[in-house]
Amino acid sequence: MKDYKIYIGGKFISTQNVLEVINPFTGKCFAKTYLAGSVELEEAIVAGKSAERTMKSMPAFKKFEALMKISNEIKKKRTHLAEVLSMESGKPIRYALGEIDRAVQTFLVAAEESKRIPGEYLSLDWTLPGEGKEGWVKYFPVGLVAGIAPFNFPLNLAVHKIAPALAAGNPIILKPSRSTPLSVLELAEIVAGTSFPEGALSVLPMDRKAGNQLVTDDRVKVLSFTGSPLVGWKMKQEAGRKKVILELGGNAGVVITGSADIDHAVKKCLVGGYAYSGQVCIHVQRIYVQDSVFDEFAAKFTTEVSRLKVGNPLAPETDISVMIDKDNADRVEEWVNEAVNDGAKVLSGGKKKDAFFEPTLLTSTHSDMKVCSLEVFGPVVTLEKYRSFEKALEYINDSRYGLQAGIFTNDLSEMDRAFSELDVGGVIINDVPTFRVDHMPYGGVKDSGLGREGLKYAIAELMEPKLLVKNKA
Amino acid sequence: MKDYKIYIGGKFISTQNVLEVINPFTGKCFAKTYLAGSVELEEAIVAGKSAERTMKSMPAFKKFEALMKISNEIKKKRTHLAEVLSMESGKPIRYALGEIDRAVQTFLVAAEESKRIPGEYLSLDWTLPGEGKEGWVKYFPVGLVAGIAPFNFPLNLAVHKIAPALAAGNPIILKPSRSTPLSVLELAEIVAGTSFPEGALSVLPMDRKAGNQLVTDDRVKVLSFTGSPLVGWKMKQEAGRKKVILELGGNAGVVITGSADIDHAVKKCLVGGYAYSGQVCIHVQRIYVQDSVFDEFAAKFTTEVSRLKVGNPLAPETDISVMIDKDNADRVEEWVNEAVNDGAKVLSGGKKKDAFFEPTLLTSTHSDMKVCSLEVFGPVVTLEKYRSFEKALEYINDSRYGLQAGIFTNDLSEMDRAFSELDVGGVIINDVPTFRVDHMPYGGVKDSGLGREGLKYAIAELMEPKLLVKNKA
Amino acid sequence: MKDYKIYIGGKFISTQNVLEVINPFTGKCFAKTYLAGSVELEEAIVAGKSAERTMKSMPAFKKFEALMKISNEIKKKRTHLAEVLSMESGKPIRYALGEIDRAVQTFLVAAEESKRIPGEYLSLDWTLPGEGKEGWVKYFPVGLVAGIAPFNFPLNLAVHKIAPALAAGNPIILKPSRSTPLSVLELAEIVAGTSFPEGALSVLPMDRKAGNQLVTDDRVKVLSFTGSPLVGWKMKQEAGRKKVILELGGNAGVVITGSADIDHAVKKCLVGGYAYSGQVCIHVQRIYVQDSVFDEFAAKFTTEVSRLKVGNPLAPETDISVMIDKDNADRVEEWVNEAVNDGAKVLSGGKKKDAFFEPTLLTSTHSDMKVCSLEVFGPVVTLEKYRSFEKALEYINDSRYGLQAGIFTNDLSEMDRAFSELDVGGVIINDVPTFRVDHMPYGGVKDSGLGREGLKYAIAELMEPKLLVKNKA
Amino acid sequence: MKDYKIYIGGKFISTQNVLEVINPFTGKCFAKTYLAGSVELEEAIVAGKSAERTMKSMPAFKKFEALMKISNEIKKKRTHLAEVLSMESGKPIRYALGEIDRAVQTFLVAAEESKRIPGEYLSLDWTLPGEGKEGWVKYFPVGLVAGIAPFNFPLNLAVHKIAPALAAGNPIILKPSRSTPLSVLELAEIVAGTSFPEGALSVLPMDRKAGNQLVTDDRVKVLSFTGSPLVGWKMKQEAGRKKVILELGGNAGVVITGSADIDHAVKKCLVGGYAYSGQVCIHVQRIYVQDSVFDEFAAKFTTEVSRLKVGNPLAPETDISVMIDKDNADRVEEWVNEAVNDGAKVLSGGKKKDAFFEPTLLTSTHSDMKVCSLEVFGPVVTLEKYRSFEKALEYINDSRYGLQAGIFTNDLSEMDRAFSELDVGGVIINDVPTFRVDHMPYGGVKDSGLGREGLKYAIAELMEPKLLVKNKA
Repeated sequence: MKDYKIYIGGKFISTQNVLEVINPFTGKCFAKTYLAGSVELEEAIVAGKSAERTMKSMPAFKKFEALMKISNEIKKKRTHLAEVLSMESGKPIRYALGEIDRAVQTFLVAAEESKRIPGEYLSLDWTLPGEGKEGWVKYFPVGLVAGIAPFNFPLNLAVHKIAPALAAGNPIILKPSRSTPLSVLELAEIVAGTSFPEGALSVLPMDRKAGNQLVTDDRVKVLSFTGSPLVGWKMKQEAGRKKVILELGGNAGVVITGSADIDHAVKKCLVGGYAYSGQVCIHVQRIYVQDSVFDEFAAKFTTEVSRLKVGNPLAPETDISVMIDKDNADRVEEWVNEAVNDGAKVLSGGKKKDAFFEPTLLTSTHSDMKVCSLEVFGPVVTLEKYRSFEKALEYINDSRYGLQAGIFTNDLSEMDRAFSELDVGGVIINDVPTFRVDHMPYGGVKDSGLGREGLKYAIAELMEPKLLVKNKA
Repeated sequence: MKDYKIYIGGKFISTQNVLEVINPFTGKCFAKTYLAGSVELEEAIVAGKSAERTMKSMPAFKKFEALMKISNEIKKKRTHLAEVLSMESGKPIRYALGEIDRAVQTFLVAAEESKRIPGEYLSLDWTLPGEGKEGWVKYFPVGLVAGIAPFNFPLNLAVHKIAPALAAGNPIILKPSRSTPLSVLELAEIVAGTSFPEGALSVLPMDRKAGNQLVTDDRVKVLSFTGSPLVGWKMKQEAGRKKVILELGGNAGVVITGSADIDHAVKKCLVGGYAYSGQVCIHVQRIYVQDSVFDEFAAKFTTEVSRLKVGNPLAPETDISVMIDKDNADRVEEWVNEAVNDGAKVLSGGKKKDAFFEPTLLTSTHSDMKVCSLEVFGPVVTLEKYRSFEKALEYINDSRYGLQAGIFTNDLSEMDRAFSELDVGGVIINDVPTFRVDHMPYGGVKDSGLGREGLKYAIAELMEPKLLVKNKA
Repeated sequence: MKDYKIYIGGKFISTQNVLEVINPFTGKCFAKTYLAGSVELEEAIVAGKSAERTMKSMPAFKKFEALMKISNEIKKKRTHLAEVLSMESGKPIRYALGEIDRAVQTFLVAAEESKRIPGEYLSLDWTLPGEGKEGWVKYFPVGLVAGIAPFNFPLNLAVHKIAPALAAGNPIILKPSRSTPLSVLELAEIVAGTSFPEGALSVLPMDRKAGNQLVTDDRVKVLSFTGSPLVGWKMKQEAGRKKVILELGGNAGVVITGSADIDHAVKKCLVGGYAYSGQVCIHVQRIYVQDSVFDEFAAKFTTEVSRLKVGNPLAPETDISVMIDKDNADRVEEWVNEAVNDGAKVLSGGKKKDAFFEPTLLTSTHSDMKVCSLEVFGPVVTLEKYRSFEKALEYINDSRYGLQAGIFTNDLSEMDRAFSELDVGGVIINDVPTFRVDHMPYGGVKDSGLGREGLKYAIAELMEPKLLVKNKA
Repeated sequence: MKDYKIYIGGKFISTQNVLEVINPFTGKCFAKTYLAGSVELEEAIVAGKSAERTMKSMPAFKKFEALMKISNEIKKKRTHLAEVLSMESGKPIRYALGEIDRAVQTFLVAAEESKRIPGEYLSLDWTLPGEGKEGWVKYFPVGLVAGIAPFNFPLNLAVHKIAPALAAGNPIILKPSRSTPLSVLELAEIVAGTSFPEGALSVLPMDRKAGNQLVTDDRVKVLSFTGSPLVGWKMKQEAGRKKVILELGGNAGVVITGSADIDHAVKKCLVGGYAYSGQVCIHVQRIYVQDSVFDEFAAKFTTEVSRLKVGNPLAPETDISVMIDKDNADRVEEWVNEAVNDGAKVLSGGKKKDAFFEPTLLTSTHSDMKVCSLEVFGPVVTLEKYRSFEKALEYINDSRYGLQAGIFTNDLSEMDRAFSELDVGGVIINDVPTFRVDHMPYGGVKDSGLGREGLKYAIAELMEPKLLVKNKA
């Protein structure tokens, strides 16, 4: 059984506190690692603070070379990393491979952006007191960053913390999910082989106490958290003076209008709704279809849902497998049952076996059922009819969340209205809200978060502007 | 009869060479001014060169205040200026007032942009030789500018030369059309009342020889010409080392699809087709209507064309009046007759009386008739049917010109295709190609021109970037 | 005695809770207004929320016209507003007039920027999944804003909340200081005369309870606070999910090197150190002079400090007058005495009379005295010698604050080092840290704040990006 | 003897017209290739036009992958390419290797920039007619490009035509110098191995007639020329309607002030003055030293010049070798003799042997000697004294050229003045004008050229903006 040491200030170490990593599909422990406590966290913070000055003064070409090396090394270890990731998370290997490819891309773009940290020129002589003066703004790394990453994209969502931090010239302490610490510890080994200084990166699964300290410690300048809304917003209040970036969840909706290509919409909603059992922040949870095409869509989509291949995540043909753990499957079962008791009809799926929950499609739901109003984070999709486009937009907005929304339409005015009126971070025309490429600005409004990720945007959040006013000598 | 002196290096002077200004509607001379020859041009150039250094070093707030003053003064003299403009050009007063309002706006935006001359920061350490260095780019005024303006917007197209030149910190010599020199000489008086130095602006109607010298003189750094393609392209070859900006004409097309609002399209095409007798660079010359809505559009449009009010340009209710001169009306008559002899049918108009040409609508034309393939610059519009959208785009592109095109559609994929495939400077969705607001980038491709106007864009063309590389001392 | 009604949702009203406004110089009440409580705050919030949609959809030209009108009206009432401001704050009329001029400029630039809300284009086809897609980002107003303004620039620091909020399309509730509510209530009257909807602006001096509610209420989307660090950082913790912008204070430092123009530095430090009795966030509190020029600077500066004209704030020749209240003068006296007891020497001033504190210059201080380490917010400056430039930068950075710093030098490498190494929001070369023009990015690091003001920057903080991903239909 | 076929429309072919390639050091032919005539040029143009549409629609990731592949392949063949380049040009191998490294970087940056083609958002509702409308600007490839490259950087200056053309989505026909066609034909082989379509690149050494046709042909949309001023400006006049970019030469100057680090300046001027025998557009031709440090600089510099290692270009220790051909060496000899006859003193060098000209340092020159006023393009540097900085700037500006200038100073006000007043494309502080990294904007003013290279800037010159105005449907 492989033993993964945790990574602090350039060293791989073990602690007293062993963490067993379970394969959700077999239910068996297949590797072990260690939990950091307050002592190890303190070491990581000290190492991070020591690295601040060195990192701030790294020339662009050195950051570029190191980040490119990381990207290339991940690519070389693609298959191995995908297997580790699949085993720790239960993610079907097809999607695990896709996640590795995205991590390759995330570091590649970070390398490119590390050379493109912006600066600005400001004429200051707009009034007499500014005569003879001009201003230049440059952006400086903010200092030590704390990143907290979730289980559902164990590697790439951690990479969305690490890559921009390094590109900006900031050291970072990354706390992975306790369920899925391995792929990011593999990444730590790759980073250790580059010219980034010791302390540039620490990867520490943590016990609860250390986790809390990471949030509150004043030496940490930015806290970037991806996870559940409840936890995230609480952190914001406890974070003291540091800046907080929150990438939380939602109950993303899709609208399929009469002018849409239905087959295309079916195909996209299938992946958006059920990939990795819906354990995705921008999973398609609510589908609204215009009445004129509702029956066609419903028939085709139900058929496709029932054809999804269930199986071992490591098998290449598997579409869907177990959830991250039985507790989550139980919760989803409870929500589905509650909905059914309240009048919802099951078009497909609806059953649980251990940690596996069937790909499930519900209809006749209403907006205060948990499967509609909360983040289901499971393979459950609701399908409802709408009459006017205005109404469809209201349905999407009738949510405490606002991450992304998808609109299938060929109608220009519908596109314009959706973009103008939807309270979300991103409106995706003719694709599902699940669409994300790694360089685009990504993040939610309302309860779905604060700030944006996507390399250029994440780097901007991790830098502080400084103005130079130059008067004539 | 009012006597307008010409403006050189801060002084209003007269020359031996009197220029009588004719009111095209009455055919009578109503004012006189003077033609500059080589001697006066030389004075203007010398004055302009002398003003270069002062203008380069004007602080932003002084340029801003002077440009705002010009904008405000034009607004105060709105009615008077519109009347002068209407009389010199035969432009209906309604449109003349609109042109004055646009000149107010052009100077206002120039004032704002004069404070926003951009600068850029460049990290240079992308490779080892750049380590320790950084770059800043600033933009400096290029020096003396020559502007040549046409008769059809006697004030605002001159202002599109003058305002960006002054905002950029460049002196300018403006040559108006010999037909319409008055409104811009009125403007010269306003500019003379500001803190711009003598030589910042000269306004000189010129004899042919001086006009040619303006094009070839090496002390002039940029030549910005608005006028006919033939003249423009010839100037480019004779301009020596200076930069040349050409705003030429075209035979702008409109596509009206089945998803368009027909009444809206009719209304817009009426103005686009016949305002100022079509003597507009982006006049609607060719209308292509999808077969399913062709009859509806044709009927409504023909009716509206026949209702246009003909009359004295100074009368507020006049929609259309004389052309700039009889020669032009003769030319248009010839082209229309040629088309009719070649099979075109007249849906409305088609007749000439002196310098007046009726608002004319033709159909059954084909693309090698002059009314289709050349710039008609008169009140003539062709109306044809199309079957597939692809075909409609081909019709628009089947032209040596490419200024702007209008597409009336509510179909998203049609919008995307039009934007991607049309070889023009601007694609206007749900409006006519005649649409222009003064701060937008405006200019053509193919034979329609070179470079862009619109304040920010025009200013950029009139400045030279300079790079500062700063190595550690 | 003038009665100023408070402004809620388009109406001027009074409450039960009278607030007497004291002239700090005479110590007498000269006007009255009213405190809002929970009921009035609730009305203002409801009115603000109602205005959100209207404001979001105002076209740029309407926002521009309204903001320009405000700017022009302030200019027209310049003298009157300066007198009101001088009386409520004790600010010498010369500086009060300057503040009015800046408010004119702040609204002018806000008007200009309201037309320049940025948008971005993103190619998305950097990997296969993005093929055929493109992204556009637009910025939308975030919704109701709360602005809390301090007494020291009663009008212009409130305007730095109001103008960007309106320019961005957000309604705002502005809470002025209870000491100085009048000039901003005068502004409310001007805003009431524009086309902004009712609820666009409310101006409410508040009792403590209402003040707290404004911070915690979840309907408010952004809290923008200018004031003391202690209060500001506490608000951040209580602000719930809303974004918080903090413009706090500091103990700004100046370095005067051997290559500086000493007379210029003396003149600038005099204004930076004593204008409005040092009650300025970026007041010059600490001066470090290179040993080679220390004696020269010290002699000249001490002389000038002793020549400052003390008097009635309304007298045009007055340089310095009373502090905002006796409590503050008492506090300053205590700090100065404590410093003197601890070894500091008084070069000038040092005495108090009622609310007036003499312009005071200390030397032989050390960094843990309150007059050095805390924000003195009074007419007290410390003057010390340094040997190496490196040491001078350390002195400046030896502070919990980091707003702006001034460096008088003609040495390129010193400029570069200062810009690179000083932990502040702005480094001012050859001027005092007190330098601010209203469109520049302004704000602090460390304990001095979070976020930036300055129109373009403040507007950006008040808008939410939204991404449109457009896939082929 | 290796036979290099020329590259047209995806095929390597030979023609009747053999071109022998001479090694300037041995004077012997070591390889042969072919001259294209009108027939081959026509084929290349047709192939280029056919490739326009395919290239325009290549998604960014495909362009990126192809450009990265080219960069990587050049890196793999580094040694071989450097040897070919050294043999065809006589460039010392050390500098040849540097040129290959730069070509690697030029393609790398082109790859990155191909994903970053900008787009712009424009609000249009600044006046009533714009209400409800918004604008987007995207940049489209302009079409077939002609690139003409010189002998002195046979690979990298060709790459500065090819890489941005391909990154922008334009096909390009590249005409190398007849002296040095080989390294770029090697590059053609690499490009042929990528997914760019046939016709994307043609590499054709040409006979005179074909060369002229390339300049005048109307199907070519942009002509980008690097070479001598005389030829360049003539091309501008003959280029018809196409856009012309000119990267010409100069007589770059350096100023060494009293605050400079003299040893650093000596070292930099040595490379800037004599690398590749001064056959560099931004070769240090004129050095002006402040009187206070003139003797020190002159002594040290003269010593270093005399120590330069002369030899076979292929030997790693060689600093300087033959010029490109004997004709050029003859011309340099003539100019030097002329100067000496006119009073100049030789501090070092001054002699010729065949195609080799000694590294030469002159003093007591005056500005109308050819070695001062014309582009010497040989290993000749003039060294003069100046008193006031103002005078030094005048000396630099006393030239018909304006490419780059170098200023060694630690004085802030000198930096500011130099940047403001020098009429050049780039001012290099504390380095020689010879400084260039491949992504920076590079190009001259006055007779030194038109437009800018450097990837982002070159790409911008090769694209056409197109505006989309979107009105509500």
